[in-house]
Amino acid sequence: MRQSHLFTKTRKEAPRDEESTNAKLLIRGGFINKEMAGVYAYLPLGLRVLNNISNIIREEMDAAGGQELFMTVLQDKDTWERTGRWDDKVVDSWFKTSLKNGTELGLGFTHEEAIAKIMTNHIASYKDLPLYAYQIQTKFRNEARAKAGLMRGREFSMKDLYSFSKNKEEHETFYEKMKDVYMRVFTRLGMGDKTYLTISSGGSFSKYSYEFQTISDAGEDTIYIVDEEKKIAINKDDFTDEVLADFNVTVAKDDLRQERSIEVGDIYSLGHKFSEAFGLTYKNEQGEDELVYMGSYGMSPSRLMGAIVELNHDDNGIMWPESVAPYRVHLVNLHAQNDEVSAFADEIYTALQGAGVAVLYDDRREAGIGEKLKDSDLVGIPLRAIISEKNGAQIELKKRKEKDAHLVSKEQLLSLVSK
Amino acid sequence: MRQSHLFTKTRKEAPRDEESTNAKLLIRGGFINKEMAGVYAYLPLGLRVLNNISNIIREEMDAAGGQELFMTVLQDKDTWERTGRWDDKVVDSWFKTSLKNGTELGLGFTHEEAIAKIMTNHIASYKDLPLYAYQIQTKFRNEARAKAGLMRGREFSMKDLYSFSKNKEEHETFYEKMKDVYMRVFTRLGMGDKTYLTISSGGSFSKYSYEFQTISDAGEDTIYIVDEEKKIAINKDDFTDEVLADFNVTVAKDDLRQERSIEVGDIYSLGHKFSEAFGLTYKNEQGEDELVYMGSYGMSPSRLMGAIVELNHDDNGIMWPESVAPYRVHLVNLHAQNDEVSAFADEIYTALQGAGVAVLYDDRREAGIGEKLKDSDLVGIPLRAIISEKNGAQIELKKRKEKDAHLVSKEQLLSLVSK
Repeated sequence: MRQSHLFTKTRKEAPRDEESTNAKLLIRGGFINKEMAGVYAYLPLGLRVLNNISNIIREEMDAAGGQELFMTVLQDKDTWERTGRWDDKVVDSWFKTSLKNGTELGLGFTHEEAIAKIMTNHIASYKDLPLYAYQIQTKFRNEARAKAGLMRGREFSMKDLYSFSKNKEEHETFYEKMKDVYMRVFTRLGMGDKTYLTISSGGSFSKYSYEFQTISDAGEDTIYIVDEEKKIAINKDDFTDEVLADFNVTVAKDDLRQERSIEVGDIYSLGHKFSEAFGLTYKNEQGEDELVYMGSYGMSPSRLMGAIVELNHDDNGIMWPESVAPYRVHLVNLHAQNDEVSAFADEIYTALQGAGVAVLYDDRREAGIGEKLKDSDLVGIPLRAIISEKNGAQIELKKRKEKDAHLVSKEQLLSLVSK
Repeated sequence: MRQSHLFTKTRKEAPRDEESTNAKLLIRGGFINKEMAGVYAYLPLGLRVLNNISNIIREEMDAAGGQELFMTVLQDKDTWERTGRWDDKVVDSWFKTSLKNGTELGLGFTHEEAIAKIMTNHIASYKDLPLYAYQIQTKFRNEARAKAGLMRGREFSMKDLYSFSKNKEEHETFYEKMKDVYMRVFTRLGMGDKTYLTISSGGSFSKYSYEFQTISDAGEDTIYIVDEEKKIAINKDDFTDEVLADFNVTVAKDDLRQERSIEVGDIYSLGHKFSEAFGLTYKNEQGEDELVYMGSYGMSPSRLMGAIVELNHDDNGIMWPESVAPYRVHLVNLHAQNDEVSAFADEIYTALQGAGVAVLYDDRREAGIGEKLKDSDLVGIPLRAIISEKNGAQIELKKRKEKDAHLVSKEQLLSLVSK
């Protein structure tokens, strides 16, 4: 992509009412636009990052046997009354609206009810189980305060997978597997080393459930590290002697390290709660009706995007991990007014594109050298390749995360990025 | 995809309250689930079709210079009051909701206001223009009645592109180009021969605008064919002597053929309406401020999916055009209980996958022969390849749209689908 064609411009300042580091940098870099607190539009660079994150998640869900579907935002009252979750006293984050005839509707903040109902049309026999279905879709939460940028959205992107098993045992096999699947996603997003499988209270369905928490000062949660090697932690809310005993933690409570953290995923055993409410049963091998055993597995691509920025930035801007970066190479022509330099820069651009490398090419004639270098740091593409009068037929390469630059030839650059 | 793993099942009957042919067939085939009138979830097969349609549109928008972004569902009242479109008396199809502090919000049914506001941060100079931005996103319309299946959704998928030009002349060059781009999309979707560029009244911004109308008895509109060769028509609502004169139609009014049709796209010149409301200006070459000249170009992937089914079905089910079909080949093993037959069917499945062909493989052991053939017709994959005891090492090929089948060898099949 030629930067002279990219419609977004960088900005020196983020909106004054923006408090979070992730949204400030993403707005300044032209990745997102703030529509209101907790509601952001994704501009071309931001959409590329969001899609890269979603596609990594999609690949891992598909590999785990997930089948993708796409449910609806509009949710009907009767469906949610069956589980008691329609009442604003039970769920305090509904956005509600209504049809012209007055029928009340809600905007989905999760989809257990919707998918359990759908599955009554498709699950009949033990032969249909287990099955796993997921979606990546926009969800809504009417947060009283939304000050954490992409990390706490009123409108946000969510991957939610639901598992349908014959019984608790079959469920638990998949539930255990998903712990690894989730850790693989975080590793691919470059945050595996800071992410902990975190024990928390299980809600109404089981004694314990698991969250995934990533250490960051920008986080709204606090965890205690129980096992550094196995990457296990306990949420502060559940840091009791009983829980420590249940998980055989022998280290003294005071000796466990405390960290601020971002919740980046959660996995729940739902038991029969939803299958009971919707009559979601299957015939077992004896021809008897049994309730389906459900689980749900959430992870928000947009929140992850915010978390990645919190974990990967310096004073000058973002430092995208290669796996999610909007482009792999930022080709910067420092002297675009010089025809000879521009001819060489064009040649490198064409060669990189020919090698299938995603390149953002700063070919702007008006921008100054300082502006180009500042913009490049702000936008945070992993590898910067500078073409300039001084460098001649050499290209100055610098990784965004490193200080040192070095000169390479065209051939060396192509061989390097083809790896 | 092995059909024994696909979680959706076909159904003999659609819900009783479903009137439209497209939704009836799509529900029976397991493509969509009806959540309420005008609101459908996309199940795995349906999502594949919807994505295929969206990707064709995306390719054509990218080729026309469009840059993809992703705006928000939640819309803020102040923004829409600036153009007078917040009032329910002006726009009667809003879904509205509110924040906890009482602030009113709307669910976006279009995004002219939102994108004009965003562009004030990115357009400054004549050098930034023209530019084209689009999204493919979920939109909401509070329709009083929604009985046309995917063709009139309360929640539906929309591609909306917006053009930003220096002046009317620059705008019109792109507007003319988009007529061809749209026709190319319809051609790729297999509906080019039935789709007409249709003159309609221009709304508040210009005397005329254009819709694209596809002939179908399921349509809610009526058009008069003005030029069969150039594929031009006039909407019944605008079929007046004045309009005929403006477009130099010399054929007598009574001689023009009348057809029922589905509106599958529309393109509007917006002039300065939105740029004026949001102060969207640019500096011209003389350094003076001028208003940006806008256009908008809509097309709904979900409505197109409904229209495609209306245009491509028979009494037995859907007949997907190859460009949007969920899979290209339906491999049907009629005798999955027979190990020898199944070994051969597995071999063909592996070979087709190896050749990069998208295959749905009916490997179900329990389903009977009649059920498998009926399901295959209902789901409507373009090419059916039957493996059976009778056929031995031969494969019986039949196109969904044709009557005659013929036997081929494995090698012939592979060479055929590799084309």
